[in-house]
Amino acid sequence: MDFDEAGVIAALARIFGGSQRGVEIGIGDDAAVVKTGNRTVITTDMAVEGTHFQTQWSSAFEIGRKVTAANLADVFAMGGSPTYIVVAVTLTGDETLAWIEELAEGILHEARSCGAYVVGGDLAKGPCKVISITALGQVETAITRAGAKVGDWICISSLPGWSAAGLALIEKDLDSDLARHAVSEFCSPTVDYSVAVQFANAGANSLSDISDALVIQAQQMANASGVAFAIDQRLISTHPEFQSLQELAATQEIDVWQWILAGGEDHVFLATGAQLPGFRIGTVVAGEGLIGVEMKKAPATWRHFQ
Amino acid sequence: MDFDEAGVIAALARIFGGSQRGVEIGIGDDAAVVKTGNRTVITTDMAVEGTHFQTQWSSAFEIGRKVTAANLADVFAMGGSPTYIVVAVTLTGDETLAWIEELAEGILHEARSCGAYVVGGDLAKGPCKVISITALGQVETAITRAGAKVGDWICISSLPGWSAAGLALIEKDLDSDLARHAVSEFCSPTVDYSVAVQFANAGANSLSDISDALVIQAQQMANASGVAFAIDQRLISTHPEFQSLQELAATQEIDVWQWILAGGEDHVFLATGAQLPGFRIGTVVAGEGLIGVEMKKAPATWRHFQ
Repeated sequence: MDFDEAGVIAALARIFGGSQRGVEIGIGDDAAVVKTGNRTVITTDMAVEGTHFQTQWSSAFEIGRKVTAANLADVFAMGGSPTYIVVAVTLTGDETLAWIEELAEGILHEARSCGAYVVGGDLAKGPCKVISITALGQVETAITRAGAKVGDWICISSLPGWSAAGLALIEKDLDSDLARHAVSEFCSPTVDYSVAVQFANAGANSLSDISDALVIQAQQMANASGVAFAIDQRLISTHPEFQSLQELAATQEIDVWQWILAGGEDHVFLATGAQLPGFRIGTVVAGEGLIGVEMKKAPATWRHFQ
Repeated sequence: MDFDEAGVIAALARIFGGSQRGVEIGIGDDAAVVKTGNRTVITTDMAVEGTHFQTQWSSAFEIGRKVTAANLADVFAMGGSPTYIVVAVTLTGDETLAWIEELAEGILHEARSCGAYVVGGDLAKGPCKVISITALGQVETAITRAGAKVGDWICISSLPGWSAAGLALIEKDLDSDLARHAVSEFCSPTVDYSVAVQFANAGANSLSDISDALVIQAQQMANASGVAFAIDQRLISTHPEFQSLQELAATQEIDVWQWILAGGEDHVFLATGAQLPGFRIGTVVAGEGLIGVEMKKAPATWRHFQ
């Protein structure tokens, strides 16, 4: 440990501080005070060393970006736009000040990409690194998982599976740009938040973030909406990135559908509605649950109670 | 582990769910959506097993109450009233479902005592238990640490030191009601939130929660306000609880002032203003820092960057 608490706090205040629109009282008091609208989105998501990230695999900047992205994606998944985040971090005391600063820079980078400010936090000491973020957002009309209507298109913002592919490849020799791309997506996913905004603007009836697995969130949306989701795997296989992911899966003798349907942590958005933008993968029909999905192994998960 | 994830989530949804005023979308979607005023207080505070609590010392109910109280006190310390909280928890997998339910009941109990609702959360698996809470609150006029004026009374909501006393006693034979009271305050402090409200209603110029130590927060308030805090230890020694705490300290051959001035985690409120309620311990004067404080050892801390 090459730092003391005062040094860490000063560094974080420097990185997260500065002029922030809507922030009346920022870091430095008992709590922050911010301007809000009359309806606020709240979500929280934590990442634990060994479970969600490994420091030998990911830089502190990537780890910061990833856990922030998980929170921001949940705000967009309600049809909202992120405004403020707070960050609680458990450190072991073995970190360098440079590592902590990089973590903060990663958090800041992702937050700023969506117009959100870091307004407060907490530091604790413990046996492993834990990063817990809460994001707030503003929303006019929330889009839940429960609004899917028979006849809706089912659309995704991008092809899921890259993060799962990266996890499968991370300890292997990366002999191709594709493999390196997958690992990079696992360490810090590229979330196309703008498609969630497009879904909302196009009047999506239901919207969710695929953070667990495509089949898990699709099933949750179908159940919440009292309809069935008819997924067309042939449509998915025409996605511009499908071929690349399939090639990568073949090198590992893995069924690409496990990655696409059961992989998690891509933060791809799944929406239903009339004539939506994004990439269509099916249709909402009468009935219940998922239709047309064939996979060998159901995804395992340990997640949100939100 | 006698539970699965689905069982835990169902239990938490049952404990935290139900009708909640102002909650438009609660647990069960990507994020919660709540009604807010145009100014919102946000704070986050995490508790780590081994650092902030030990399961052999505290029941899950006490642990849940304690970490929730730390967050709620920060909202009151801004002159606000708590509205909503979200809870992220890392579990090791060794917990029983009953332990997790008790933790949730403790969180709920403390939140409900202040009129706040639990609207979401996250579950993760990791090598140690971590509970990270974010609390929101509403506020008309925020009271910061920076408003202390020369001539202000300096007042506390109750006598700090009980939590530090409890920590000192927790592994010893508890042979008196006083000792048992101290340990109980350490495991789960009794926070008199109503005095913070009284301070705010009486027009306090500055307000803070003594979560680190009386001398630390007093110094922070003096520095933020550009004044000096003249603390009168003789006044403190006339507090109705001083004698009891001093007796307890004598049994341990500890200087009671270490507990009162340098102990933390009591969540006592410290305020300045004209003719305030609470218990007066000094006066704000021109100058800087703390005046009149005599102690043998400065408090150690590892805390907030908020």
